[in-house]
This record gives sequence, structure tokens and C-alpha cells, in this order.
Amino acid sequence: METHLSYNDLIAMEKRLRGNLINSAGGFKSVCLIGTIDKAGQTNLAIFSSIVHLGASPPLIAFIVRPDSVERNTLDNILETGYYTINHLNESIYVKGHQTSARYPKEISEFDAVSLTTVYKDEFLAPYVKESNIQLGIKFKERTDLTINGTILIIGQIEHIYFPKECLCEDSFLDLEKANSITCSGLDSYHKTMRLERLSYAKVNKEIEIIKIKYIE
Amino acid sequence: METHLSYNDLIAMEKRLRGNLINSAGGFKSVCLIGTIDKAGQTNLAIFSSIVHLGASPPLIAFIVRPDSVERNTLDNILETGYYTINHLNESIYVKGHQTSARYPKEISEFDAVSLTTVYKDEFLAPYVKESNIQLGIKFKERTDLTINGTILIIGQIEHIYFPKECLCEDSFLDLEKANSITCSGLDSYHKTMRLERLSYAKVNKEIEIIKIKYIE
Repeated sequence: METHLSYNDLIAMEKRLRGNLINSAGGFKSVCLIGTIDKAGQTNLAIFSSIVHLGASPPLIAFIVRPDSVERNTLDNILETGYYTINHLNESIYVKGHQTSARYPKEISEFDAVSLTTVYKDEFLAPYVKESNIQLGIKFKERTDLTINGTILIIGQIEHIYFPKECLCEDSFLDLEKANSITCSGLDSYHKTMRLERLSYAKVNKEIEIIKIKYIE
Repeated sequence: METHLSYNDLIAMEKRLRGNLINSAGGFKSVCLIGTIDKAGQTNLAIFSSIVHLGASPPLIAFIVRPDSVERNTLDNILETGYYTINHLNESIYVKGHQTSARYPKEISEFDAVSLTTVYKDEFLAPYVKESNIQLGIKFKERTDLTINGTILIIGQIEHIYFPKECLCEDSFLDLEKANSITCSGLDSYHKTMRLERLSYAKVNKEIEIIKIKYIE
């Protein structure tokens, strides 16, 4: 049976319940750990599920920050240094990743608190998460304040991508499932995935075909 | 073995290959069909994987439009009428959903072209996808032009949510997996999900616990 809730029903809900429902309603999400460092060398790690692809030419990726939260340290570090890393969550580290959302004081690094390992590569300023299989090094490009609810859209350019060689396909599709990346829903639900199919580029009056996955040898 | 690609490597790639790689790199995504109608009554349906949760109080959801694409009709209709629907893709309709990305002329509705059914509810202007199990009715709130690459961020307010009653949990978490919603990666890969766990709210010096799923009877 179908349930219907209107805007007024949503507004009348208890805040925590509305948060759970609305966070679920948008569908499955990318879930990553964002690694930063401040000028004094103090590292920070925070989990984000508001990451969105912005474009490939140039390679841009965006995410939403809620400034009244633990995400504030991430934002401050990005604005201070101009660099950050985006590290895919995977099945082996998702509980540690979730724990980074606790309100640790600024002088404690979440890397230490949850036992994840910093790794620095190719002279990039910000720390990557060693235990993550797909890692992006990002250069901050611009912030847009969304006055409608006080959130901030942070846009960055991909400067580095690291991934397991065996996950790359002949057409440069990256097999996230093979890299063990996971997805999340709502505020706290983590899911692994099972591919249905890759589908061919859609054209008018042409039947969709299944793309066979071919890895680069 | 780890592969590393730098910004210069990415820029040097053939455009289609770079598109595949960068679209994969951001992680798993929400994938939904956006339904609209113009003032003359012509409907439109398009697939989007750039949907992002913006906030619960008020309930806001955003997505990115690439204006040089078939997504243009969706944008025009939203700006013309102020309303649209977001409909979760599921395993039964994902091939039809993918086909909506073909370049149909404006006078052909993708609903007809791919054999999905319009349904109108609670006097809401825009058509929902009948075959979708989780449907949102959205009121357009604002557009932000992202001049960095010509994309547009569209923010809307959730006016209606429809979902199967049996998917709602006691704490208002919506079980997307039970609703058969799927996720996507890259430009063309569709995945169903398998829940690992729901995890308790993270606190400093407190062990994470598993949240047991309890549906509302």
C-alpha cells in the first residue's frame, strides 16, 4: 500500500524522524572520507555523502558542507590550504568511516581516533586514506553559499586519481564494485552493490545493448 | 597494483574515455527519473544521476543540469511551470529509464517512447512515473549557474513523498532496498544493493552499534 506525506506532514514531524526520512528519500549516495590538513600540520578526516559529479572537461567534483557541524573543520582546512582528498569508503573500513562523524575536538585527528592511516603521495599536501582503494587528490576551485538553508557547495578539480589497476576497463570505466567501494542511504545505512548491467549509449529507434565488461590486461 | 593518473594525464585522454573515468570516480550515485510537463501539456521524462540531498528543515533536494544536452527540456519545463517529480529507478524499469537519455525531439514524450506511465496525484502539476516505487513531488525554489563549467544547480522543495508503506521503519528511515531502488556508477552501470548494516549515531568514546531494522506494522 502506498503512503503519502505532504510538505505539511513533513514539517510537523519530529526533527530526527524528518531527518531520517528526507535523507533516505533522495536515493543511494556516494559515500567518501574527505582528508585535510591545516597549516600547523594537524590532519582531519570526515565522512560525506553529498558528493556529486560536476563535469569531466575539466574534471570537477562538488560536495555540500553543513557549516554548523563537525564538517566545519574540513571546510576550514580546505579554505586554509586549498587542497583535500576524497577517498572511497569500502566494506573493510565503513564502521571506522562512520565513527569519524563523532564530534572530536580539533586537536584530535580522526585518522588516529578511528585507526585509519594517512598516506602522502606525489607531493600532494593533503593526506589520503591508505585503506581506501580509490583516492582522489582535489584542488579547491570555488565555494557557493546556498543562502536558502545555509549550506555551502564546494567545487574542486581532480588533480590525481589512484585506483587498483585491475578495476580499469578498456573504455576507461572504473569498476567500483571490484574496488570494493560501497554506497549509503539515509544517515546511517551502508550497502554493497551487485551490478545489474552496463547499458549501451541510448539512441532514438535503437535497442539498448548490454556492454560486456572488459578489463585492461 | 595501484595506477596513478594526474590532471595532465586526464586532460590528455580522449573525451569519451575521460568521461567514463571521471563519471566513475565520484562513487555510486542516486539515479532517478525527473518528470515534467510544459504549459501546453507536453510531458517529458529524463534520467539524472546528479541528485544530492540538501537539507531536511525545510526538505530540500538539488540536482545538476548540463544545459547543452537532452536535459535542456527538463530545465525549460521546470522554469516554465515551477514543478517537477523525482522518481526512483528500480530493477524493473532501469532499461527503460536509461533509454530516456536518447535525443527524442521535444514533441515526443519519453513516457510514450519508452513505455512508462504518467500518473497525476493530489492535484500536483507534474507527472509521476507510475512504475516507480518512491516518488517525490518537487516545487522549484532556485537556480544557481555554476560558471566554472556552465552547469546549473537546481534546488527544489519536497512537497509530496509517496512510498510503499512496508518500507518505512519506526525511526522514519526509508528502506530503499525493500522499495527496489537501485544505484548507478559511471554513465551506464546499474547496481542493486545489499545492506551491510545500519550504524548508530557516532559519539566520541562510544562503540558503534548496529541498528536493527524495525518496520512500522
